Amino acid sequence: MVITMLNKFPHKTQLIFKKKWIKISDIPGKPLVIYDSFFDSKKSEIHKWLSAFPHKYSVPAGEKLKSLNAFPVHMENILKLVEQINSKDITIVAVGGGSVGDFAGFVASIVKRGVRFVQIPSTWLAAIDSAHGGKTALNVSGYKNQVGTFYPAEQVILMQTLLSNQPTDRLTDSFSESLKIALIQGGSLWKKFSKLKKWDENTLWRLLPDLIKAKYRVVNLDPYEKKGVRHILNLGHTMGHVWEASQGLSHGQAVLYGLRFALDLSMYSKTMKAKEFQKLMGLKIMSLLPTPAQLRSVILKTNNEDQYLRQDKKLTKDGKVRFVLIKKPGLTPIKEVPIEQLVQILEQIKN
Amino acid sequence: MVITMLNKFPHKTQLIFKKKWIKISDIPGKPLVIYDSFFDSKKSEIHKWLSAFPHKYSVPAGEKLKSLNAFPVHMENILKLVEQINSKDITIVAVGGGSVGDFAGFVASIVKRGVRFVQIPSTWLAAIDSAHGGKTALNVSGYKNQVGTFYPAEQVILMQTLLSNQPTDRLTDSFSESLKIALIQGGSLWKKFSKLKKWDENTLWRLLPDLIKAKYRVVNLDPYEKKGVRHILNLGHTMGHVWEASQGLSHGQAVLYGLRFALDLSMYSKTMKAKEFQKLMGLKIMSLLPTPAQLRSVILKTNNEDQYLRQDKKLTKDGKVRFVLIKKPGLTPIKEVPIEQLVQILEQIKN
Repeated sequence: MVITMLNKFPHKTQLIFKKKWIKISDIPGKPLVIYDSFFDSKKSEIHKWLSAFPHKYSVPAGEKLKSLNAFPVHMENILKLVEQINSKDITIVAVGGGSVGDFAGFVASIVKRGVRFVQIPSTWLAAIDSAHGGKTALNVSGYKNQVGTFYPAEQVILMQTLLSNQPTDRLTDSFSESLKIALIQGGSLWKKFSKLKKWDENTLWRLLPDLIKAKYRVVNLDPYEKKGVRHILNLGHTMGHVWEASQGLSHGQAVLYGLRFALDLSMYSKTMKAKEFQKLMGLKIMSLLPTPAQLRSVILKTNNEDQYLRQDKKLTKDGKVRFVLIKKPGLTPIKEVPIEQLVQILEQIKN
Repeated sequence: MVITMLNKFPHKTQLIFKKKWIKISDIPGKPLVIYDSFFDSKKSEIHKWLSAFPHKYSVPAGEKLKSLNAFPVHMENILKLVEQINSKDITIVAVGGGSVGDFAGFVASIVKRGVRFVQIPSTWLAAIDSAHGGKTALNVSGYKNQVGTFYPAEQVILMQTLLSNQPTDRLTDSFSESLKIALIQGGSLWKKFSKLKKWDENTLWRLLPDLIKAKYRVVNLDPYEKKGVRHILNLGHTMGHVWEASQGLSHGQAVLYGLRFALDLSMYSKTMKAKEFQKLMGLKIMSLLPTPAQLRSVILKTNNEDQYLRQDKKLTKDGKVRFVLIKKPGLTPIKEVPIEQLVQILEQIKN
C-alpha cells in the first residue's frame, strides 16, 4: 500500500507499507544505507536483507551517535562511500530507530547540499513518530537537538517484517506514542482506538496508517515550527522527559507516565470535565496506563521534578511550563502553567 | 537603495546598498555577528562599528574556518552566544569574505533548524559573487565544499564604506568575477562593461547592482543545481582553479588567467568567430586580461594541468572536462572537452 502525504514541505512524502522485505530496486536512486550496527551482530533475516546493499555504513544507535563531536569522522567515512555513487543517484537510506533517522536525515540534508532521503524505521516509535515530520537533529555538548534541519524523507517505508523483529517491551513503548497521537487527533482515529481491547502487533500494524496521518495533520499546520502549533505533539512528553532522565525509564514508559499525569492535571485544572475523565479512564485500553499508585511511586522517587524542568530550559521567561492539556480527545489546548502550580499538584498526588 | 530579488528559493533576498555604515536597528531581529577576526586587530572604523553589536563571534577567515573538524567547537561557542537571544529573534549576520559567508550561512541554516541570515560582504569578491546564490559550505578533509546547504540570506547588505576598506589588489581581483558575469549576461550589462576605460572602486560600485542581478538571473534558472545550469558560473574557473592551486595565485588573478584561456579556447575550437574575438580583445577594458605571453608563462610553469584536473574530480566518466566557452557575450555554451584536446591546446600555447 502506498499513501502519498501532501505535506507542506518543498517535496511530498510517500508512505509505503510492505508486509515483507522491500527490494533494493524498489528504492529510488542508488542507496547508501546508514543502519543500526545492532543488526551487524544478528544472524537474522535483517542481516541477510542488509547484506544485499552494496553501499552501507553501520552506526551505533543512541544519543552518542547524535553528538556533533563524533560527526566529522562519520561524515568523512560517509563521503568516501558516497564517492562511489554518481552524485545525482545518491539516496541516503536510514534503517534504524529515532537516533539513526535523526542522524542519517541530517547527513542527507547536507551532503552535497542535500540528496534523496528514505527512512526505513526499525522501531515502532520511529514508525509512528520520529520518521515523520522532517526534523533531523544533532546534539552539541549540553544542547540537545539544537542543530539540525527540516528535511522530510521522500519515502518512509514501513515493513512489517522488520518492525516485528523487536523485543516485546518496544511494543509496549509504542502504545504511548499511539495513545498520544490518538488523543490529539480525536475523531475516527480516537473512535477506533477507544474500542481496542488489547495492544498487540497486529492492532498496531492495522492502526499505523491512521496514526501516521494524524501526525502529518499536525505537522502540516506548522511544518517549520514557526507558530508553535507542533508543540501539541509534546503531549505527555513534558513530564515524560523528566522521568526518562531521572528514573531511567524507556522513552515509551516515561511518556506513558507523562500521559497519565497530563490526564490528571487536565482534570485537576478543570480543563477536562470529571465526567469526561471518568469516561476515558473507564475504557478497557486505558488500563494500560500507569495506575495512580504507580504514578505516585515515580513522583515519590524523583521528588525534584521542578529542578529538571528548570535545567531543561523548558520554562518561559516568567517561570511557566507550556503544558499540553486534554479537554477531550481531539481538543488538546496548550496552557502556560506556573511551575509552582505544577509542584503543588505533584505534592497533591504524593500525599 | 533596496532591490528585492524574487529568487526561486522559499524566501526572497533583499539587496541593500548603503554608502555609510548600517545601524544595528536596521537589521531584522537580534543579530549575532560572525565576523572576520582580521577586524579585531584593526583600530579602524570597522572595529568601532562592530563594537556596537552586543552579540558577536570572531573567526579566522580562510579555508581552515570551513573545516568540519573545527566545526563542533565553533558550534558550541556559537550556541552559548545564541542562548542569550530569544529563539525567534536570532539573526546570524556574516561580516567578511567568502569563507566567513559560507561558514556563517551553514551555521544559520542548522542552528535550531534554521534561523534568519544576513550577509554583509567585506570583500568585493563576496559582494559580487559568493554572498549571492544561497550556497553554504564546509570542507571535509579532502572533500572541498562537499557538505553544505542551500540557504540564501534574507538580506545582503552592501556598504560602500566597508567594501572600500580593502587593499587595492582585492579590487583587481574583483575585475575577474565582474568580467565573468558580464560575459555570461551579455545585453545591456555587457554594453556598459565594454565601454569602460578603467577599473576602479567607483566604477565597480556603480556596476554592482547590475552584476549582482546577472548572478541572480543564472541562479534562478536552477536554484538547487538540479539541471547543471549554474555550471556556467564556472566560466574561467576550470583552469583558474588549477592555476590558483598550482601557482599560488589569488583567486581573482587565477580566474583572470582562466578567462583569458577560455577566450583563447573558444576561438581555437571555433566556438567564437575570429572576428568576434578580435572585437572583444580590442576593447580598452580587456587590456586588464593577461597577455598571451603572461598566459604562456603560467602554463610553462605549471606544465601538468591535466593532473590537477584529474585530481580535482572535474572529469566526466569518459575523461572529458565540462568547459564553459564563449560564443559571444551573453552566449556561453558548456561543452565537454576531452582532456587530451585540452592538453593539446595548452601545448600549442606553450610553443
